[in-house]
Amino acid sequence: MQDRDTTLSLVLFSGTDDKLSAAAVLAVGAAAMGRPVNVFLQYYAVDAFRSDRIAADHGLDPEATPAQRSTVTTHAGQHWSELLRQAKDIGEVSIHACALSMEMFGLKQNDLDPLVDDVEGVAAFMSDAVAGPITFI
Amino acid sequence: MQDRDTTLSLVLFSGTDDKLSAAAVLAVGAAAMGRPVNVFLQYYAVDAFRSDRIAADHGLDPEATPAQRSTVTTHAGQHWSELLRQAKDIGEVSIHACALSMEMFGLKQNDLDPLVDDVEGVAAFMSDAVAGPITFI
Amino acid sequence: MQDRDTTLSLVLFSGTDDKLSAAAVLAVGAAAMGRPVNVFLQYYAVDAFRSDRIAADHGLDPEATPAQRSTVTTHAGQHWSELLRQAKDIGEVSIHACALSMEMFGLKQNDLDPLVDDVEGVAAFMSDAVAGPITFI
Repeated sequence: MQDRDTTLSLVLFSGTDDKLSAAAVLAVGAAAMGRPVNVFLQYYAVDAFRSDRIAADHGLDPEATPAQRSTVTTHAGQHWSELLRQAKDIGEVSIHACALSMEMFGLKQNDLDPLVDDVEGVAAFMSDAVAGPITFI
Repeated sequence: MQDRDTTLSLVLFSGTDDKLSAAAVLAVGAAAMGRPVNVFLQYYAVDAFRSDRIAADHGLDPEATPAQRSTVTTHAGQHWSELLRQAKDIGEVSIHACALSMEMFGLKQNDLDPLVDDVEGVAAFMSDAVAGPITFI
Repeated sequence: MQDRDTTLSLVLFSGTDDKLSAAAVLAVGAAAMGRPVNVFLQYYAVDAFRSDRIAADHGLDPEATPAQRSTVTTHAGQHWSELLRQAKDIGEVSIHACALSMEMFGLKQNDLDPLVDDVEGVAAFMSDAVAGPITFI
């Protein structure tokens, strides 16, 4: 039973390392404050959670300039998948893959990293996001 | 009179087919649960709703890799404009074009697809978004 | 003491002029309605607020087509930094730089424009965003 007023719902669309890192930092921050976090993976984010490539280089947002790319790439920080693992350890964080996107990419749940709890439709996601912010990244 | 606590406000900035499809899926999901949906079109999203090009190819997010492009492009799914039409049929969904963006692109309301209900300023949009999530896509 | 139910929290990730302008328009609209606005700068947005380059050309989102680029670039409008200054004049708008991103880019607060109030961690940001929308741009 989630406290729906404070649940942070994150729709992850992008599969680049910078946006996934920004999302993971928000998830950790919310989980550390005791907020439930409800993550929905669509499009390129689903692809980034494939177990055979979650640790691979997923590139950066195309807006990054060469100087920015160099700065972000050489920065030693924790991988977003590790941050999400910590968020799950300290709080109530669930990660769902969008059924439509899974079908589009021809994926089954066991193609994805165990961080992903299940595959669900948008109606199920929306019923957990009935109040509280819905943040698209 | 909207139930402002549960209204989902979507600010559509991007005009690519993948992001517009992701937005339309969220709108359909929210409308199916009886949530009012309040859409505000800015920048490239306004351009994508022009009646002479709404059905055209609007490309994909520049982060998509060639393999991802091929996957998304060949996937047979409903067009986002059709999904939005369904959302309007089943629920309380209003679509507003941002007055500033309309002026920037030199557009008048009758240049836009009939899915768009009106042109409004950010103050009017914000007064319908006084509570509930504001999701930028 | 903020009215946390209505606080609009904006996480600015992108550093392009079109997205920063869209964000500034939303901030002005919210501030004009008396809503507190809580801005958190991450990644490329932090870089865009550097005092030595805030007025520089920060480019447009890579999805913009050449025709859209021409339209947006030639449009005479107020700069986003000026809009944010107005939002601060008329309302309760605070702008925080993400500590992790500051460290990544090797920046100190006095490298940033005075529009930025302070540097804070994600926990501090989240404690001001405990209710109300969290909009990622």
